[in-house]
Amino acid sequence: MSVTTLTLPHADDFHVHLRQGALMRAVTPLLNGSGVATAYVMPNLKPPVTSTEQALAYKAELQQLAPEVNFLMTLYLSPELTPDEIRKAAKAGIAGVKSYPRGVTTNSDSGIESYTAYYDVFRAMEEVDMVLNLHGEIPSDAEEGVCVMNAEERFLKHLQELHRDFPKLRIVLEHATTKAAVEMVKSLGPTVGCSITVHHLSLIVDDWAGCCHHFCKPVAKYPHDRAALQAVVKEGHPRFLLGTDSAPHPRHAKEASTSVAGVFTTPLVLPYLATILESFGALDRLPQFACQNGRAFYKLPAHPQGSVVTLVKEPVSVPAEYKFMDDEGQERSVVPFMAGKSLTWSIKQH
Amino acid sequence: MSVTTLTLPHADDFHVHLRQGALMRAVTPLLNGSGVATAYVMPNLKPPVTSTEQALAYKAELQQLAPEVNFLMTLYLSPELTPDEIRKAAKAGIAGVKSYPRGVTTNSDSGIESYTAYYDVFRAMEEVDMVLNLHGEIPSDAEEGVCVMNAEERFLKHLQELHRDFPKLRIVLEHATTKAAVEMVKSLGPTVGCSITVHHLSLIVDDWAGCCHHFCKPVAKYPHDRAALQAVVKEGHPRFLLGTDSAPHPRHAKEASTSVAGVFTTPLVLPYLATILESFGALDRLPQFACQNGRAFYKLPAHPQGSVVTLVKEPVSVPAEYKFMDDEGQERSVVPFMAGKSLTWSIKQH
Repeated sequence: MSVTTLTLPHADDFHVHLRQGALMRAVTPLLNGSGVATAYVMPNLKPPVTSTEQALAYKAELQQLAPEVNFLMTLYLSPELTPDEIRKAAKAGIAGVKSYPRGVTTNSDSGIESYTAYYDVFRAMEEVDMVLNLHGEIPSDAEEGVCVMNAEERFLKHLQELHRDFPKLRIVLEHATTKAAVEMVKSLGPTVGCSITVHHLSLIVDDWAGCCHHFCKPVAKYPHDRAALQAVVKEGHPRFLLGTDSAPHPRHAKEASTSVAGVFTTPLVLPYLATILESFGALDRLPQFACQNGRAFYKLPAHPQGSVVTLVKEPVSVPAEYKFMDDEGQERSVVPFMAGKSLTWSIKQH
Repeated sequence: MSVTTLTLPHADDFHVHLRQGALMRAVTPLLNGSGVATAYVMPNLKPPVTSTEQALAYKAELQQLAPEVNFLMTLYLSPELTPDEIRKAAKAGIAGVKSYPRGVTTNSDSGIESYTAYYDVFRAMEEVDMVLNLHGEIPSDAEEGVCVMNAEERFLKHLQELHRDFPKLRIVLEHATTKAAVEMVKSLGPTVGCSITVHHLSLIVDDWAGCCHHFCKPVAKYPHDRAALQAVVKEGHPRFLLGTDSAPHPRHAKEASTSVAGVFTTPLVLPYLATILESFGALDRLPQFACQNGRAFYKLPAHPQGSVVTLVKEPVSVPAEYKFMDDEGQERSVVPFMAGKSLTWSIKQH
């Protein structure tokens, strides 16, 4: 007997980049066909989203583009962020604060260098029960032996310390890529969660070596790291949840001498996930990983009645690209993950 | 007191890809300005160079393009290669045989899968004192945990076994990228040498993450690996020698969805090397690394009288690209290593 139809609630994507301007207008409506109905939106715009006002204005823009999606907004951790602003943000429904190490990924120039300077902010977040989202890498430093392959593992002690110092603060280690990260998160208390992307369940270092559309931060690592990510999803560990880190960039910025980091998965989140989870025997964990674990960790209400997606085992081709006009009126495109490949699961059109 | 002028013999590049057709005609004459006068030429053409005739015909083409360069030719290890062909090749002055693991790098589809099938060939090579050049990586295999980051380290046991079984066969581990490789080569006997490229003395994994012009095989590894390569050059170990693995590709094949592997260093070999060696305090080892160790290992005669290059500490800009017309008459270009950057050492024009 084989499963050919799956009915599940809409998925929740607890880490997504929806950009701004023309690119935002191009990618945000694609949420509608993806099976995702909750989008936890990253604040690394230019300039970064550092205030409640900015976050709410951004949310209003997104809501217009995808009225049926529930947008959860975040602030960018930076020296301007005060405990007062945290309390204000919480009242306004802002869900979390994202911390970027300086210079590590797209638009992270305003990122943090040390956490201790932010302890007042974290205390306020703990009080109002706001979530701290960590980009878990330390900056590369050849003198110290730090490079993209071990930057996450070397970060983990900071996660451990933050959790020790703020045991009630809900912290999510974002887009984990290593066995070490999986083990560290498992070893910590119930207030520490961990998001895993679609693409890190599929890629290893070989896949981005010479392949710009698979290049992202943190980079995909060793086969045993991918195996650990797959295993923790297969095991159904409740604190590991979907956050795609879908990060669209125009093709010309990827296929270039110096490529920007990011894999674009938004348009087909559930078909990708069903296909990939089935490939390692974890299809039965799809609802838990994509629709339940995150909601529980983020304390969201149960799915509304009728929030249902039907997946059918019918192949769908991933488009070669998604075209759009950029802010200068130039025709551009975004290349999705697995462009031109066939997925074994698709979303049934109602 | 600081060194501002260096006079040394022409360099010997014991690993270079000079391609064929239009690209060959574009890159081979660039040897003239590079400070290199001996070029040990890789046989991975389409089709691969597997016979003495092919190698001699290829050599004649190259010689026409750079009459002052001493071209040393190699054969591609494949099932067609017989002990008789080895003896014939040796008589014709072919210097070595190159072994590629199947599918690991550019035009390696004809590469080997197991060495034992070639033991008769190796025995003949040992008899005629021909050099075996090893691309030292095993093919990636996620099930076995093998990926581009550990493919070289996992290969080293094969080097060890080959040396044990053929202690008199001169073997060069090509383009070493890891501390493990340096240590293994050091631990073996005087018949085992090791080439190091210009770019692996400079790059780590971060440099090719999202940067196609730094992507090559084997990929650059961790900071401690680069440090080990630099240290063995600085130490002046006599069995570590220059082999640039300069591997030109047209820009459009690099800046693409799937990028081909290779870093192009031929036009400025000595200026690159002087600049990079000076950066880690090993400038005094330049003559030994680039002009002596290789000649000694390969048993070449002393440099001819008047084979002299003068390097001066005057900055030179690396060109953004080298234009050429491809075989279809299309204007193309090759982007060199450190394109647009400034080198601190240049070759004095006579």
